[in-house]
Amino acid sequence: MFKKVLVANRGEIAVRIIRTLKEMGITAVAIYSTADRESLHVQLADEAVCVGGPKAKDSYLNMKNILAAAIGTGAEAIHPGYGFLSENAEFARLCESCGLTFIGPKPETIDLMGNKEHAREQMKQAGVPVIPGSDGDVNSIEAACQVASQLGYPVLIKAAAGGGGKGIRRVDNEAELKEAFPQAQQEALVSFRDGRMYLEKILEHVKHIEVQVFGDAQGNAVYFPERDCSLQRSKQKVIEESPCVLISPAERAKLGAIAIKAVRALHYLNTGTLEFLMDQDHHFYFMEMNTRIQVEHTVTEMVTGVDLVQLQIEVAAGMPLKVKQGQLLPHGHAIECRINAEDPTTNFRPSTGQVKDLYLPVGNLGMRIDTALYPGVTISPFYDSMIAKVVALGTTREAAIAKVRRLLKEMVIKGIHTNQAFHLRILADPGFLAGKATTNYLEQVILPRLQDEIETKKRSGLSRLTGE
Amino acid sequence: MFKKVLVANRGEIAVRIIRTLKEMGITAVAIYSTADRESLHVQLADEAVCVGGPKAKDSYLNMKNILAAAIGTGAEAIHPGYGFLSENAEFARLCESCGLTFIGPKPETIDLMGNKEHAREQMKQAGVPVIPGSDGDVNSIEAACQVASQLGYPVLIKAAAGGGGKGIRRVDNEAELKEAFPQAQQEALVSFRDGRMYLEKILEHVKHIEVQVFGDAQGNAVYFPERDCSLQRSKQKVIEESPCVLISPAERAKLGAIAIKAVRALHYLNTGTLEFLMDQDHHFYFMEMNTRIQVEHTVTEMVTGVDLVQLQIEVAAGMPLKVKQGQLLPHGHAIECRINAEDPTTNFRPSTGQVKDLYLPVGNLGMRIDTALYPGVTISPFYDSMIAKVVALGTTREAAIAKVRRLLKEMVIKGIHTNQAFHLRILADPGFLAGKATTNYLEQVILPRLQDEIETKKRSGLSRLTGE
Repeated sequence: MFKKVLVANRGEIAVRIIRTLKEMGITAVAIYSTADRESLHVQLADEAVCVGGPKAKDSYLNMKNILAAAIGTGAEAIHPGYGFLSENAEFARLCESCGLTFIGPKPETIDLMGNKEHAREQMKQAGVPVIPGSDGDVNSIEAACQVASQLGYPVLIKAAAGGGGKGIRRVDNEAELKEAFPQAQQEALVSFRDGRMYLEKILEHVKHIEVQVFGDAQGNAVYFPERDCSLQRSKQKVIEESPCVLISPAERAKLGAIAIKAVRALHYLNTGTLEFLMDQDHHFYFMEMNTRIQVEHTVTEMVTGVDLVQLQIEVAAGMPLKVKQGQLLPHGHAIECRINAEDPTTNFRPSTGQVKDLYLPVGNLGMRIDTALYPGVTISPFYDSMIAKVVALGTTREAAIAKVRRLLKEMVIKGIHTNQAFHLRILADPGFLAGKATTNYLEQVILPRLQDEIETKKRSGLSRLTGE
Repeated sequence: MFKKVLVANRGEIAVRIIRTLKEMGITAVAIYSTADRESLHVQLADEAVCVGGPKAKDSYLNMKNILAAAIGTGAEAIHPGYGFLSENAEFARLCESCGLTFIGPKPETIDLMGNKEHAREQMKQAGVPVIPGSDGDVNSIEAACQVASQLGYPVLIKAAAGGGGKGIRRVDNEAELKEAFPQAQQEALVSFRDGRMYLEKILEHVKHIEVQVFGDAQGNAVYFPERDCSLQRSKQKVIEESPCVLISPAERAKLGAIAIKAVRALHYLNTGTLEFLMDQDHHFYFMEMNTRIQVEHTVTEMVTGVDLVQLQIEVAAGMPLKVKQGQLLPHGHAIECRINAEDPTTNFRPSTGQVKDLYLPVGNLGMRIDTALYPGVTISPFYDSMIAKVVALGTTREAAIAKVRRLLKEMVIKGIHTNQAFHLRILADPGFLAGKATTNYLEQVILPRLQDEIETKKRSGLSRLTGE
């Protein structure tokens, strides 16, 4: 086992990783930017190295300085956390060439799954169902109409060489397709000098279901119970749960078998997550794979009792997976609310400043709050606005919801705006409580209601939402 | 289910019960003394009633005021917590006569088990092994010698009518017995006007092992995995664990079967704990039964995932036990450190004052800190010095110890003295780590070492122990 590991991250995930390192008896090295001198992860680590200025590109994305810090402190491995360099194949390669273990998948896997088209093709070949679309290019209106009628509307017209939203059109019927296809193709030609187009079915009223997997160097592979991350705003997850209440044990096993196909096909090392869309008939469609630990791994830890970061470190050190598939059934139901420093009443504008009063309700069974907050800490404008994850485990989904509501009601964070009260609104929403919320539910149903109330309150002279 | 419940307690246990009530959707009523106006349990409750002055007898033991508070607020039941009125049969009877449900056993059970001699007799009849002793009185030196040689030395000579340590002698051989017996009998005659004596075997090098049980009104009974509470100072538990590493699954089942005999014999309602001594040959001897929730129920909750306070409330409301015996195997290993406001360097003198800096490390898997602490709270001299319970769950005992050490190292409580650093000393002790510490280990092995170090440091001019 490693004696010393560098954590190339900040905030709650750095704190979370450092804590596991300490419990494993491994010396933890933190890195920090000049804006993070006082951060909790720096205080908790055994050693800490400043790697640059406040901007991420100068510090947490500064590969040379991070590698120098690892070599200088004598670290044997680097845990990248999520975000920053966690899915950067070049960084993983540089670690290797410096004789450092990158705690994550092999660089070629990161590369392969980082290209969304290649990933889709690879998964299709492995027998993983993907979002239906044209097989290769579709280069005439007639061919497009034929493929679209097979897929069923609505469909997305996409430039094969696309990116940045250019050459993309949503069409809801054949008339729209006939009009939009030449426009999109023209746009693609102008933007990418490449007029090759393809079609993809638009899946509506779907849930975001994801499956975390693990592979070790010995060829063992396991999957964990699925997570339902359908509550999203601007493509960012807001609430995550495990398991999904709509999925039966038989469906769970089937989905798991699909995930294992992917692990086998990729000879996947360490942890990753396959993200699927699930339609109303419970068909699953692969979207993409994240080749890192995710924010929401916490709910999986709660329902299985497995420390996933510890498992990452063990696998990276060459140890075989300690867990067996049979142990990985969900015990109860876990739910996580991401607390962001933002103001829901002004279109979720990020909030910065000093945290004055802080009360984190630690106690009773089945709870955790993963955070780098402490009294007096300053939330700077340089990084992600997520400041805490409030997680509850209950014997049932209802019990987990009751517990996370109780935690949110007790928690006090003063000095900055947060989405704490907004979470309590979601947790009381009938659609959410029924467990049927799809990926557009938060933005199409809950947010408009919130907006209406804000308008009403503004007119009546009140400026802030308080609690439920 | 009850709509409103009054919690007749204070501190961490009141907070812990109120939190479960809230998660169950039950309105929580707190009571408080004038010294506890600012206490966390008062802040978290839905309603709070002041029941008297700072002294316990004026407030938390003031039955009339507590019953008046319950009736006045429309509470349907009272949860007594531990300590105070929790094992007071008269209070349980008064609740009944006021039409309030006492969340605990029947008053006659509290009475029966409150009398240690009656409890011993009752358990013996039920087939529960008790500490060996004379069968009834032993009223001559000759008879005493005969019984003692059967029991094996050392034995305790005890006055049948005894109490307060009068008429008690420890003897290690027959010569000592012959000398001490008449003295003890004389002392008993003088003190109690009753010269009847009996003998009890002194069990040395024993562990304190206890088994929590539950009975419901429908006649169902379950036992929970045992707790090892051998680490004690002045008969007060300091560290508790579950399960006991020395006990095999077969022994656990056997011990559980003994505990179930007791539940059946007593027609036991709600929860209670049978306390045993375990000798080096793993024979168990009943000591006494606590007819309430115990401080250390937390470790049992961690290894089984069952909210025991919720179970108490459900059973008190007439519901059958939701858990089945088969579900109650220990999952992993839990350990709890009781944090007291006291100074280990001055013979554990209680410490009072305002808590200035406070950092409670909430986060990661398998932890809880049950406490009524918050920044700025004042620890008053009126009540028990226990201010927090730091609990960790690991897959193994070693992992649980590593985690609780990490939690203790991170935790910051400034403004008062605590035994936080003392716990880190125990957690590094080889005898403790081997899992073999008996009930006298802390006082006979760990404390003398601490005392030596304090003396050495005093001579070298240092006045305080810091960490390990």
